[in-house]
Amino acid sequence: MNADLKREREQASFDVLKITHMFDGGKAATDRRRYLERVIERDPTDIFSNDDNHYLHRTERHVRATAKHVRLVEICRKLGIGKECGGELCESDDFYFLLDAVADDLPTALHWVMFLPNIKTLCDDEQQAKWLPLCRDWKVIGCYAQTELGHGSNVRALETTATFVPESKGGKKGGSFVIHSPSMTAAKFWPGTLGRTANHAMVIARLIDGEGVDRGIHNFIVPLRSMEDHSLLPGVKTGDIGPKIGYNNMDNGFAYFDNVEIPRRNMAMRFAEVDENGKYSKKHVSAAASKVAYITMMQVRAMIVMGSSKALAMATTINIRYSAVRKQGYNEDGKTEVQVLDYKQQQHRIFPLLAASYCFFFSGRKLWDNLKKIEHKLISKKPVTKVQVADIHATSSALKSFNTMVAADGIEECRKACGGHGFLASSGLPELMCSYLQSPTVEGDNHMLPQQVVKVLLKLVQAVQSGEGVDAYTTCDSYSLVPSLKALFSGQREKCLAVNKTDMKDLPTLLLAFRHRAAMLLINVAKQLNDDVMNGKSMQEAWNYALVAMAKSSKAYSLFLLLRNFMEGIMEEQRSKLLGRAEVSVLGDLARMFALYWMEKDIGDFIHDGYLTAKQASWVAPNVLEFLDAIRPNAVALADARDLSDFRLKSALGRYDGNVYPHILEAAYKDPLNSVDPGPAYDPELKRLITGGVGVYSGTASRL
Amino acid sequence: MNADLKREREQASFDVLKITHMFDGGKAATDRRRYLERVIERDPTDIFSNDDNHYLHRTERHVRATAKHVRLVEICRKLGIGKECGGELCESDDFYFLLDAVADDLPTALHWVMFLPNIKTLCDDEQQAKWLPLCRDWKVIGCYAQTELGHGSNVRALETTATFVPESKGGKKGGSFVIHSPSMTAAKFWPGTLGRTANHAMVIARLIDGEGVDRGIHNFIVPLRSMEDHSLLPGVKTGDIGPKIGYNNMDNGFAYFDNVEIPRRNMAMRFAEVDENGKYSKKHVSAAASKVAYITMMQVRAMIVMGSSKALAMATTINIRYSAVRKQGYNEDGKTEVQVLDYKQQQHRIFPLLAASYCFFFSGRKLWDNLKKIEHKLISKKPVTKVQVADIHATSSALKSFNTMVAADGIEECRKACGGHGFLASSGLPELMCSYLQSPTVEGDNHMLPQQVVKVLLKLVQAVQSGEGVDAYTTCDSYSLVPSLKALFSGQREKCLAVNKTDMKDLPTLLLAFRHRAAMLLINVAKQLNDDVMNGKSMQEAWNYALVAMAKSSKAYSLFLLLRNFMEGIMEEQRSKLLGRAEVSVLGDLARMFALYWMEKDIGDFIHDGYLTAKQASWVAPNVLEFLDAIRPNAVALADARDLSDFRLKSALGRYDGNVYPHILEAAYKDPLNSVDPGPAYDPELKRLITGGVGVYSGTASRL
Repeated sequence: MNADLKREREQASFDVLKITHMFDGGKAATDRRRYLERVIERDPTDIFSNDDNHYLHRTERHVRATAKHVRLVEICRKLGIGKECGGELCESDDFYFLLDAVADDLPTALHWVMFLPNIKTLCDDEQQAKWLPLCRDWKVIGCYAQTELGHGSNVRALETTATFVPESKGGKKGGSFVIHSPSMTAAKFWPGTLGRTANHAMVIARLIDGEGVDRGIHNFIVPLRSMEDHSLLPGVKTGDIGPKIGYNNMDNGFAYFDNVEIPRRNMAMRFAEVDENGKYSKKHVSAAASKVAYITMMQVRAMIVMGSSKALAMATTINIRYSAVRKQGYNEDGKTEVQVLDYKQQQHRIFPLLAASYCFFFSGRKLWDNLKKIEHKLISKKPVTKVQVADIHATSSALKSFNTMVAADGIEECRKACGGHGFLASSGLPELMCSYLQSPTVEGDNHMLPQQVVKVLLKLVQAVQSGEGVDAYTTCDSYSLVPSLKALFSGQREKCLAVNKTDMKDLPTLLLAFRHRAAMLLINVAKQLNDDVMNGKSMQEAWNYALVAMAKSSKAYSLFLLLRNFMEGIMEEQRSKLLGRAEVSVLGDLARMFALYWMEKDIGDFIHDGYLTAKQASWVAPNVLEFLDAIRPNAVALADARDLSDFRLKSALGRYDGNVYPHILEAAYKDPLNSVDPGPAYDPELKRLITGGVGVYSGTASRL
Repeated sequence: MNADLKREREQASFDVLKITHMFDGGKAATDRRRYLERVIERDPTDIFSNDDNHYLHRTERHVRATAKHVRLVEICRKLGIGKECGGELCESDDFYFLLDAVADDLPTALHWVMFLPNIKTLCDDEQQAKWLPLCRDWKVIGCYAQTELGHGSNVRALETTATFVPESKGGKKGGSFVIHSPSMTAAKFWPGTLGRTANHAMVIARLIDGEGVDRGIHNFIVPLRSMEDHSLLPGVKTGDIGPKIGYNNMDNGFAYFDNVEIPRRNMAMRFAEVDENGKYSKKHVSAAASKVAYITMMQVRAMIVMGSSKALAMATTINIRYSAVRKQGYNEDGKTEVQVLDYKQQQHRIFPLLAASYCFFFSGRKLWDNLKKIEHKLISKKPVTKVQVADIHATSSALKSFNTMVAADGIEECRKACGGHGFLASSGLPELMCSYLQSPTVEGDNHMLPQQVVKVLLKLVQAVQSGEGVDAYTTCDSYSLVPSLKALFSGQREKCLAVNKTDMKDLPTLLLAFRHRAAMLLINVAKQLNDDVMNGKSMQEAWNYALVAMAKSSKAYSLFLLLRNFMEGIMEEQRSKLLGRAEVSVLGDLARMFALYWMEKDIGDFIHDGYLTAKQASWVAPNVLEFLDAIRPNAVALADARDLSDFRLKSALGRYDGNVYPHILEAAYKDPLNSVDPGPAYDPELKRLITGGVGVYSGTASRL
């Protein structure tokens, strides 16, 4: 092992394994994860090797990634994984451990991320009984086809139609739907797994019932390809949408439907149905059932929030290990070189991201748990209010938007902070980033979501202002804002109570500041909307002008929640005795660093209304520097604690053993450009130039 | 043409062509540029087509890009381009127009960007007479080999040695140097053009003279490959360093030297020499000559600053046109859809970047002109002081660091703000960004440069504080800071004089605020350093702790210079009568937007010391919104004015005609993944899975 890394590890003040167990949820889970990682790494077929990823053409990578999926199913069947779920892999925790262990994107992903959950939540029992076994046996591989070439987030504007045709007018027995793309921009465009892999799609289309009435958006299971030979079915045209900035294993696809007829019962009929005569009706399902469907879909967002923690963990692990190995500049002795990790500038770029990766873990876990709790309540018929559902929608929207922004920017910062070598594919960071870049855009664009957050929170503001209905929020995340909202409305000026620099490191003090800021910015949005409407703008216009302020407000709310959940999460771990004092202490440092760093970044928000005095504000930046010092000796250990294997990191720079340079070279030698010498451009091109065969200046200049 | 774009263009308040001429430097230059662009676009060989770029394997793209270079030389010779420079293409303006027109990265680039300028500035006359004709005729294709696998910015730590061997001890006639890589980390690593293309390298190595004395870093021309057949010369090992996040046409390379002997006179001997006996001596060259060399190297940085303007212009052009075409959400009528460009949030993301692309143009031009002026003074033996050289070093470092950061982040913001379609390679934005990402790292890492800026500026601070030597700065950029520095030292409190929201749109008022902020942050760095040393830290330690503050300070200085140059640039254009009132007015809007946007972003800096009151600060964000309104009707025209042809933009989203959707689809169809149906993964992989050939659960779960 590299001597610097060895020394770094020896100086850690805490037990790395305890933190690893915390992330996994206990020792047993760590052991199971590690076992499954070994299954993949040591698989004798070598299909799972990621060593050649960067040298393959996209087509080869896609084929290879498909092979990984097939092998994964084979392994599961051999090992009995998922057997406890009747062979439904997607219900088995082990399957997700294995997916993580593969450390590569599989073209089949949308099958379990969207297609299956859709069937489970939107289809009635009979439909589920038909489709789920087909899915389980991978006879049906599905995707989720919502967005169209011309329309993304604005679901109301989708063009694809599903028109009912009764048996009497040429439809199938029991009636049919005809799925049709009425224009070029109506092409389904973007769905993952659609392009080359899926043989079925859950298509979102406008339902035109037997009376010709447009009933809005509904879901339809549309067979795309034969389950016998994968040939396209009549009227269906699909393909891959072409190369992307990342995520290129995946065949995101397009699909045109030219009057494609499907059985009436391929409409997902849990919440609404069309009968054999084409009569449309909403089903009398309990409000709870539709809430369950909604909550289930929100879980995808929770997974993205948890993913933001993991992505940052990968990037910071790579950067921190490399920064410990890499030297630059001389120490005061003029001879030994400085570890890059010792530069305050480097620490200031990376440690707050390390802190964020820890912080996001606690909020991701809490969000996930809360969604599961609500789901469980609904299933066991306990009351869940609209307010509660809206509140968790706001929380998940705010966190999705903020966390993926921080993670995307953070991965890139980690990459840049590896200097030149971070530009190499073999650093692992380019692919990590480029594939991650989908996250800020999918499942609600990061710049759309703040509106939804604020829309929900403004109702709380109104409740506080009017004094009516605040009680409905007691179990909600947003209820934590109420004291500051009340103070602001009562004209009582909240002020930071720190009297010295040390006070300004106190977590409860910091949390109060973030609460005040979030409440203040939220009220400012309400005021701006109100003023603009008073001054003659329409509500839509006023809303438009407030979008910038809403983005700020949503971010401030996220930071408040994140810090609160970080603090609560640490306390929970402390109570559960999984962590000792040393671990709690270092997590506390990360939480303080996180809070102070973001306070420093947005300091204007904290001082412009006098919440912080200039004096108090002047303590923030020096405190950040102090926590850089505090975290420095534990930095490598805090990265190690995420227990990301070399196989998963796929990085010459981030290796556990620190043996960076030979692996950079090894990766270089492998490039196909080096397979012949002179290189492949010499004979056909360079040779003429160098040896003088590329023409000469003629006597007079001529024009082509 | 798309109807929305047509309407956008009709509503512009100014003459687009006048602004185009401003960017080009006059009508004649625009015409020439357009003519040369047509030469490339209409070249009958089709070599220059960029249509297949995204579908080619890296090796194919590299070969193709090499072919482009060869064809370019051929075209130049046919058209007589560069004939006026004796065939030295790299001295011909037309050659650079053509390079821009090609709109693709050429593997030969380091030949003219670094190798040739090195020969011209560091070699003596006799050496130049030998090498320049070989370069001109492309018999020699060179690269610049400085960075090593283990060492980048810290030039002092380079390991490669060049050891003198006299004829008497087996050296060549007149003596030799032996170039050697003493360790694995000594491998030259990163130099562009080195991997597969170059047959010579300008190698930076430690000179060990005839007495065995290490004379530090010097430059040596090292033949790598035979000029006859491109075979590697004895002892040389080179290759490509493998795939990168971008810039993959280029064969960035590595090189090991195993005791490679070169003639003594291959050392660049303008400033120092080693004679036949191995005696080392500095040459008595005028101080001016070494300054010229330094200034020449700084021009690369000026080119990067200008490049930041162009890169942002490309990204904002693509985004603005697409945002005008793309619709999302409904207008108040509930039927017609809203142009994405009408959302304030979208404007707030993009218009400041549009303003930055304009702003950076003026500073890039000024920096370039100033460097040329100094160079000219030096050549014509007029006095140039050390202070002046240091000052322009600070300016170029500050601007390089800040501008490339804004451009890199800005391109990505433009990409994200295209929503899903920005993720497509066919949007043009992924490649634009990924190739641009080299800029923040090369030629002085953006996070290293602020130290150098502050080091220079601290001398001015000292001069102002002591009252001695300030006059030496009168012709310097940094002299503009003096009034605020003086005020701060005299304890006189500068304050913003705006009495209402309108005052806060006044450019001189805004500039004063940016000046105050820059001076204040600079003095804070000085104070922090001073305090830390007083409190017992070593200077190196104190310096380390101040790095974060230096980064802020350098950024603040950049913003001050950028705004000042923007204002002066507009006034110059106004005086020269190239622009009319309408054009000046819209440029003024951009300048105000630029200033207010950055003030809003960093508002804490402006209020924490009371320069702005809370009241004054509260006018900033609403003013930004007002300028979004002001710029909105001219947005498309301001993008058009950069006159970036579709051929150069390479973007389905950014097309001049707005015909976005058919071109997205066309690009999708072309992906090789679509060349067969079912796709290439079906037969080898998916088939087994779907038709049931991937094993079954055995009776008891077994372990692999």
